[in-house]
Formats: sequence, structure tokens, C-alpha cells
Amino acid sequence: MPSITVTVEPEGRKISVERKIILLKNLIASGLSVRSDCGGKGECGKCRVILKDQKNANPISLTEIKYISEDDIKAGYRLACQLRIEGDSSIFIPSESKIRNRRFLAEGLERPVKLDSAIKKVHLHLPEPTLQDPRSDAERLTAFLEKTCHLESLEIDYRVIKNLSETLRRAKWDITVVLLNEKEVLAIEEGDTTSLLYGVAVDVGTSKIVASLIDLLSGETLALGSIENPQIIHGEDILSRISYAILGENELKELASLAINGVNTAIQNASERAKVSLSNIYEVVIVGNTAMHHIFLGLQPRHLALAPYIPTIKESINLKTEEVGLRINPCGNIHLPPIIAGFVGSDDIADLVATGINENNETALLLDVGTNTEVNVGNKILLLSCSCASGPAFEGANITHGMKAVEGAIEKVKIDPKTFKIEYEVIGNSKPVGICGSAMIDILAEMLRNKLLDKTGRFQVRQFPKIFKKTGNTTSFTIVRSSDTEIGKNIVFTQRDVRELQLAKAAIYAGCWILMEKRKVVEIELKRVYVAGAFGNYIEPANAKTIGLIPDVSDNKIELVGNTALSGAKMILKSKHVREITEELSAKVKYIELGADLTFNKEFSLALQFPHSDLNRFQSFQRDI
Amino acid sequence: MPSITVTVEPEGRKISVERKIILLKNLIASGLSVRSDCGGKGECGKCRVILKDQKNANPISLTEIKYISEDDIKAGYRLACQLRIEGDSSIFIPSESKIRNRRFLAEGLERPVKLDSAIKKVHLHLPEPTLQDPRSDAERLTAFLEKTCHLESLEIDYRVIKNLSETLRRAKWDITVVLLNEKEVLAIEEGDTTSLLYGVAVDVGTSKIVASLIDLLSGETLALGSIENPQIIHGEDILSRISYAILGENELKELASLAINGVNTAIQNASERAKVSLSNIYEVVIVGNTAMHHIFLGLQPRHLALAPYIPTIKESINLKTEEVGLRINPCGNIHLPPIIAGFVGSDDIADLVATGINENNETALLLDVGTNTEVNVGNKILLLSCSCASGPAFEGANITHGMKAVEGAIEKVKIDPKTFKIEYEVIGNSKPVGICGSAMIDILAEMLRNKLLDKTGRFQVRQFPKIFKKTGNTTSFTIVRSSDTEIGKNIVFTQRDVRELQLAKAAIYAGCWILMEKRKVVEIELKRVYVAGAFGNYIEPANAKTIGLIPDVSDNKIELVGNTALSGAKMILKSKHVREITEELSAKVKYIELGADLTFNKEFSLALQFPHSDLNRFQSFQRDI
Repeated sequence: MPSITVTVEPEGRKISVERKIILLKNLIASGLSVRSDCGGKGECGKCRVILKDQKNANPISLTEIKYISEDDIKAGYRLACQLRIEGDSSIFIPSESKIRNRRFLAEGLERPVKLDSAIKKVHLHLPEPTLQDPRSDAERLTAFLEKTCHLESLEIDYRVIKNLSETLRRAKWDITVVLLNEKEVLAIEEGDTTSLLYGVAVDVGTSKIVASLIDLLSGETLALGSIENPQIIHGEDILSRISYAILGENELKELASLAINGVNTAIQNASERAKVSLSNIYEVVIVGNTAMHHIFLGLQPRHLALAPYIPTIKESINLKTEEVGLRINPCGNIHLPPIIAGFVGSDDIADLVATGINENNETALLLDVGTNTEVNVGNKILLLSCSCASGPAFEGANITHGMKAVEGAIEKVKIDPKTFKIEYEVIGNSKPVGICGSAMIDILAEMLRNKLLDKTGRFQVRQFPKIFKKTGNTTSFTIVRSSDTEIGKNIVFTQRDVRELQLAKAAIYAGCWILMEKRKVVEIELKRVYVAGAFGNYIEPANAKTIGLIPDVSDNKIELVGNTALSGAKMILKSKHVREITEELSAKVKYIELGADLTFNKEFSLALQFPHSDLNRFQSFQRDI
Repeated sequence: MPSITVTVEPEGRKISVERKIILLKNLIASGLSVRSDCGGKGECGKCRVILKDQKNANPISLTEIKYISEDDIKAGYRLACQLRIEGDSSIFIPSESKIRNRRFLAEGLERPVKLDSAIKKVHLHLPEPTLQDPRSDAERLTAFLEKTCHLESLEIDYRVIKNLSETLRRAKWDITVVLLNEKEVLAIEEGDTTSLLYGVAVDVGTSKIVASLIDLLSGETLALGSIENPQIIHGEDILSRISYAILGENELKELASLAINGVNTAIQNASERAKVSLSNIYEVVIVGNTAMHHIFLGLQPRHLALAPYIPTIKESINLKTEEVGLRINPCGNIHLPPIIAGFVGSDDIADLVATGINENNETALLLDVGTNTEVNVGNKILLLSCSCASGPAFEGANITHGMKAVEGAIEKVKIDPKTFKIEYEVIGNSKPVGICGSAMIDILAEMLRNKLLDKTGRFQVRQFPKIFKKTGNTTSFTIVRSSDTEIGKNIVFTQRDVRELQLAKAAIYAGCWILMEKRKVVEIELKRVYVAGAFGNYIEPANAKTIGLIPDVSDNKIELVGNTALSGAKMILKSKHVREITEELSAKVKYIELGADLTFNKEFSLALQFPHSDLNRFQSFQRDI
């Protein structure tokens, strides 16, 4: 009987499984740990996995129906202890079922804002109707609110109107009104509930969904919740997701509901941690790249991937909870800030407001490295932005021992210039499994410093014959010997890995350079270079410059700002003023389409070398090595 | 075995049925005809009836599942040829299953309006996006529309955004945009569809739902559709419906969906007659009394029936098709004009705009007689309105041989002053079954003229011993002898009937008088008395004055204006200007709560006499008899 291959997401490991053996045993046999409190007896319901395609599996068992909600069954959840895979498949191990979690970065640079949330509560005691004052319930409410709160042209949501007469009387006219933007009555609650007012800021990343629960009365962050983006089952990177959504209406809906379920889980985690009831959460601000934004809204992302890369909508959107399917207060508001372009989303808008480069006189550069790297250059007068197709190499894809920044990943590397002995640091306390992006940059930079690599990216095999190993067509540089690894073989870095990373870094640098050219600024005029995103936060700035990933500015100007997509979203949640700024930004930031830029190909080629073909642009490189 | 009583709506006839015999046979045996093309073989599906409570019946048969849609099964539809009733029940025979239809009045006074509907279509050819012009689809559309049509701050409905990118490209950027109020993009269609633009005006009456299908490009009325209001199964009058809705959320939902299904049927009938596709109907304007309005919207009408009779909302509402459940174009708009008060609905608003008394310098009185009679007095400077609890007597309830104006009803009566021989006219060509409202007024007036009745409402038995018949406690006046009737017994008019009608007419007159007093007008200053409604259209004005139902104005001032609720709704559908007027009216018309009026009890007592205790108010009465 031929063995079956199962791809286990989010890490993307491929394992062989046996047809008649339940998946949990196969997973354990492959060294993959999945939570299972009862040890596979079907008594705890903890070994949840998501199976992409149910046709290659045994039918849902009664035990699974017992432990898995109907919604989750529709979303493909199974119990690994009940599941028998009968053909090549993909499964996804959700966060909750994992013992080892991906390291993630929730904190980002966040500027203080004056607390003035879009959602507000007002406690009122309405005058009761009489035969002499027979105004309608709606009129009585709006007139009183307009008078006491100095508001104008209030509207009442139809859902509120539906229960208005009963609520007012049950409350004996003593109510709390929930207002959106001081314009719309979102909800009416009995009695005084003004002390309970929460909101959530969510960053829907391609890999990770992170939710931050905020007390909208104090502005305080109460708790975080996070989950791997369950869409990963349909591919690690944005383009795979788009390709899946293009297949049809159902596939798009599936992706949307995976994202929505993910956001629900992240919010629920945070609310449980903070002991805040979901019904007291009245607003969710959601940022993400344009593909995540479109898919979340159920908009077909097909044309984001096809020239001229047109988004359906750029403006911000407010939606009702039920239109989206988020589980907060049923009358709550879901706010999606505006986006900038087909590949520059509201996460970039959040990056901008979190760093504040749109408000400063000083010119700065902001980049958020990922499969697509967003780059922004400018100041309060003019901001340019672009998206560089940097690819998933820094996330580990197409790199021999590449992996994401999860436990077991080597994240820092140094090479002793005398002995060439390699020092490394691993995430968590385990033996190394592979190499993540920050370590790839370290390896390249250290190899350049030690002349193991020339500026064209070629391993200097002739000069250092003992350092490199040749197996077939592959030349490799050993980072960790098999005896010291978790995987039982050498962790290596190959000539082909260098080539992949050259393509990635050249795309990013070319984007930065073209924006600087168009904005007419040179390195010395950049007062700050903000590197945003989880990946960015662990890189060594000097090494990033050494390989020519970012322009050559002095180290003290480089600021690793962390998850500014989330911190920006928090600012948007807390401040109507910031929300207005995002609208202006969406209209004002000038998007540069690199695909339409005539200098891009030349700049990309020049940037393939380490640090760059034109060394005038990297004068510090001369001093460095 | 005791016989079972089934109440057959909408006429309210009670029939005895046999338990083991199918309902169709029982109905036919009782002289009630129900359409049955196949003669009860279960082969045509035409003998549809609505059974209120399924617990007293055999389960749904496979034949019924074959012929009745799932929605209709939920709504209680059954086939009479499959149904066995096993306990006292109510059934409703819907219009489509009837051979004899209720006479109804769709036409009403309608003033010409400048055609300017809220829904408009614009055919556009958008410039295609390029790398140099990468605006979002939404931005491209709104910018082009705003420029070419000189519009501002357009909004796009989220439902449209969801399919926008695909629709634009499938249409090759050649599209027709459907706009609401030149503010909101409701729909995008491929190619040029500007020649197809229809709307429907609907009057949701307590008894009858009438829909008028309008070509919004020409203003022409293309077809009518109508159906008995299927809510009748829960009672003939508004208060019974409210009582049912009060029972709970499910009962309210059931009533709402009965009304919505009824409106759907009426619209579908009209669209089939006009051969217009439902998908080309973009707006429905719905008027009705406040209870119908609230129930249609799913608003609990409980407080309409309890002092101080407060409606939930008075303002007009625009809803999405899917929020209501109407089957027109899925992007269409459902407009409910504003109401005036708890018992003065949007049907009264429609009456006002159709007669135009709100625009004239001349003072007029408008009344729409029903279970609640709306009365309006005034002119363009000030309009007062009130609602009189006139009760259902004129609709036939509580009157010995009373019935609605359906086939078989006596609608006109004259008494020969010499022979006292009675001449009558019957609706349709059948023998008489009972007496409808207009004939009741005729009988009272003719009896007064012929001194058979004194001004206190007492039968003059002593003076005319041969004319009246006494059976037990009941004194009756025979209108038609049994040999000439359909029911095989005398159709009579009793002393108790007079008392019922006195209560009704006194309530109406007192309302008129109090409004005239408050508006400070006397009869001579009234330039017009508009009598609206189906009932009003068949009454004899002189007789109405003779009994003191309406104030004593000269006959040429009385205008029977017919179904102005529907004709007003048509004007609201055709003209944004009229729609604005309705908003003003709702705010401006001064509602007088008769229950809070200190003079009401006295005025009501004075009005019990024929025509009135104060004969100075009815000087023409002296001349008349």
C-alpha cells in the first residue's frame, strides 16, 4: 500500500501517514505534537485539526459531533484522534491544539492619542409619554438625546427600532444609549451600563491574527488574543489565497469565513483573558493587507493579482456585526480603515499613523517586510508608497532549511572571524530545526564580512575549500551539525538559498530607492528608517544594511517599531481624530506602481549585488568590511 | 360524534364540518365555492386554503408537498382536497382560490404629479483602469457618476460593492447604475437597461392588500394586483391583530410574514398581468394604518393599543429588499412613508396628498371610514387629525345580517314612502346574502325619512305594527324575505343593529366636530368634504348626512374620492417632491388624541341621536324629512 503524504500547516511540513492509523498517532510518530489531554481516547476534544478536503477522509464520527460545533464542522474541524486520512491531504493545526506556539509580536510603537472613541455611551432618563405628549418612541429618544448631548440629525439603526418600544418600557425609561460617531444610535440598554465599554483592534496578518482588547473608557489595553490565520490551509502567502478565492464564490466564502472565525477566536481569547463579556465589546477595528481586507469583506480579490491591480474599494467601511459574522455585541460596529492600493492595505495606513511620519516635518522611510513589503517615504507634506514583491524567502519558503520564526528556529547567527566557528541563538529552549529570516540576514552579512561570500553572492569555495561542502550540484555551508539539531541532519545554507535571498532583498531595496528618487530625498536626508512587522523587529540593522536590504543610513536612525499594524489599529479604535487622518491618508498618499516604473528593472538588477552594484550608495559598507 | 365548527375567512362564515370528510367536500356542501380545477383529485393544486392552527388537522400529505412551496407550507397553506379538520378551526380562503371575489376599489382621486421618482437609472461607459490610473472600482464609478450627472457624496451599497469588481469587468465597463435619491448606488447592471424601470405602490389595508404597478419612465399605471390580507385569519379588525401580536415574538413574526407574503402575492399578480419581470421592479412604496405599518416592519404594536397609544417610530423608513423579504429586484428599495400617530397611519398621509387639502387655501374635511375612522380638518396653514374608534359595525360585524361589500351583499336600499316596499341592489348577480355598510346607512336614513325610526333610534313599532316583527327580545325590520335570499331565511335589520350603528356614527361625527371646533371652522366654511376608502365610495352622501354620520354641508361639497390611500401611495412613488411633502406632513399635522379630549364624552352622547341632539347643527335635516 503506497504511503500518503499529509502537509501539516502552518509550518508546511510534509509527513507520511498510514491509511488505517488515526491521524493523531501519525502526527505523534512524525514528531509533531498536538494537544491531547485524554491521550487519544476521544474524551477531551482537544486534538482539533482542520482538514481542507474531507473527501480523502473517514466521515465525521459521533465523538466529533459531540466536541465540535456545527460551524466548526462546516469549517473543516476534525479531531485528530478520530480522523483517518485516505489520500494526499493538507491539514492545519490551529493554535489551540498546539503545544509549541509561534512567537509573535503584538507590541508595536504606539503614540499616545487623546481618548475619543467612535463609540460612546450616554445614560438617560427619558420623560414618559402621556396623552398630552404622544411623540413616537424614536422621536422622544432622539429629541432628548439631541437636547441633552447637543447632537444633531441622529439616526436610529433599524435593529434598534425593532425592539425600541419594549426596551424603553422594560427599562422604565431609564436607559443607556450606545452611539456611533455621535450620529447613529447603535443600541439601547436597560439602566446604567456606561461603565462597560470595550473595543478590539485586530491585525489580520497573512500568517497571524492578533487582537488587542481595549477599555474604551480608560484607553488601557486589557489583553491580547491571537491565532494562526486559519486560511494558511490554502497556502502560506497572499497569492495562494487569491488563487484559491479565484476558483469561485464558494472558495471565496470559505476563505472569508476562515478569516472571520479566526478573528472571532482571537477576540474570544482576549475577552476570556480580560474577563470581559463579548456583549460589552461594541467595536472592532480591523486592519490588514488589501487581499486580507477584500477577502474578509467577501470581495473577490482576483483583480488585485492582475494588472493593473485594482482594488474594489479604498474607502473605510463601517458594517454591522451581523453583516460580517463577528461575535461581539450584536449591535456593534465593525470598522475597516481605508486602504491605499491593490498591494498597500490598511496595515500600511496603521503603520503610518503609529509611526506618525505623516505628521512630521522630517522625512522618514518606513518599511514593513513580508511576502509583499510595503515601503513609504516622505513626511507630512507628501508621502509616497509602493509594494515590493519580495516573495516569501525571508519567511522560510524556498530556503533549504528556512522556516518561520517559530520555536526551534535559529534567529541569530555570528561567525567567529578567526575560527569560522558559528554561534547561534534558537527561539525557545529546543535544539534547532531550521533558520528564520533574521538569521538568514545575519548569515549573509557575516559571510560577506568574512569573505566567505563575494559581492555577487558567490560562495568563495576556492578560497575556503574546507568551509563548504559540495553534494551533487549543491554547495552548502553548514550552520549546525546534525548531532546538535532536532532534525537529525545538518542545518545548512546553500548557494541556491543565497540566490533566493538576493532576489528578495533586491526587490525591497529597489522599491526604497525608487521612492526616494521620486520623493527627491537622499539617505542623509532620511531622519528615520522605521522597520515594522514581527520579522523586522528581530533583524540586526547593521546586517540589514551590510547586505543592502535597506538604504545606507546611520544605525541610530534605524528604529525597529514592531507590530505597528496592530498599534496603529489601536490608535484608530481609540481616536476619531486618528480615524479622520486615515481617510486623508488614503486619499493623499501617492501610490507608485513599481510594475509601471521604467527604472525598476534596472534598479532591481543593480540591487542584486551585496550590498549594491553602485557602492557610492553604501559608503559605510567600505568601512564595515 | 359532535360536529366541528370551522370559521371561513375572509367572510367569517361559520360552517359545520364532518370529521372524516375532506374539507373541500365540506366547503362545497356549505355552499362555499373554492377553485378546484381537477374536482378534488389532488391533480391541480388550486384549492389552496390557509389553516391557522395545524394541530386540529391531519398531517401534510405528499400531494400537498408537491403543489405547495416550502414557504407557503410554513405559512399554513393546505389543499382543501387533502385536508381533514379534526377540531374547531379557522381557515382562510385566499383570493386565488376563490371564484367570487370581494369587490374592491383600487382607483382613487389622484392628482397629477411631475414624474421624478426616487429611483433613477443612468447608463455609463466607464474609462478602464490602467497602471497610470489605478483608482479603486468604487472610486472610478463614483467619480465618473458625480462628474457626468453633477451629483455629490454618492454612497455605494455594500451589497453592490460585494460584486462590483466582477460586474464591471463582465460588462466591459458598459453599465447601468440604479440610484436612490441621487445619493446611493443601489445596483449595477450590465449594458444599457435604462428602458426597464418599474415601481409598485401598495396599500396594505386591514382587509385588502392592493398593489399598483407603475412604469417609472412614463408614470403610467400598468396593472393592479390584489389579495385579501391573509392576516384576517387572526381576526377581522386591527385590535384582534394587535392582540395576537402581543402574545409573543413568534406571533408578531407570523403576522408580519403573512402581510409580507400578501404584498408579494399582490405584486406578483400585477407583474404577471403587466408582463413585467419582478427583477425590474426597483421600489415599493407601502402605506397602511399604524398597526399594519408596525407589524409589517416587525415592530411590536402592543403600545398602539394601550394609552397613551405611542407608536415606535413616525419617520419614513427606507429598507433593503432583504431586510423585509419582498420579492422584487434584490437591490430594490422599500419605502414606508411616515405616519402621524398611533392610530393615524401612512394611509392617512396618502389620503392627504391625494386630495391635496394640505396644499389648498380652502379648508376641507377628509374622512376615511373604517374600524378606525381617520378624520382630518384644515388647509395648507394648519391641519388637524384624529382617529375615531368607530368599530367594525359598518364592515358588518355585530350586525345581524351585516357583511362586507362582497358579492351577495345588499349595497343600496330604498323604501317606497307609500307602500314601504323595499328596493335594493346586490353586489354581483346573485341573490342577497346580507347587508353591507352603505346599505345600512340607506336603511337608517330611509327609516328616518319614513318615520319608521325616531331621532333617538327607536323603531316606531306602535305606529307601524305590521312593519316590524317581534321574536323574543328582538324587534326586526325585514329587508328581504327568505324566498328571495341566498341564505334561505329573511334578511332583517334589528333594533340592536340600530344601536350598534348609532355608536359607530356618533364616534365619527364627534371626531369631525371636535376637530372643526379646534380648527375653529363651521360647516359653511368647509369647501369640501372628502370621503375616502372603498366603503365611502358607495355611500349615498345625502343619507350619510341624514343619519348624522358627517357634518351638514351641501351635497355638492361632498366628494367620494375612493381609494386615496393607494392613489396617494402612487404619487409618493412617482414624485420625490411628494415624498418630501409627506415628511413635512408627518411633522406638521397636529394630532388630536380624542381619548384625552375633555369634550369627547359629551359630544359623543349628543351625536348618538339622528342626526344629532343639537338640530342647529343639521338645519338641512329639517328640510329633508
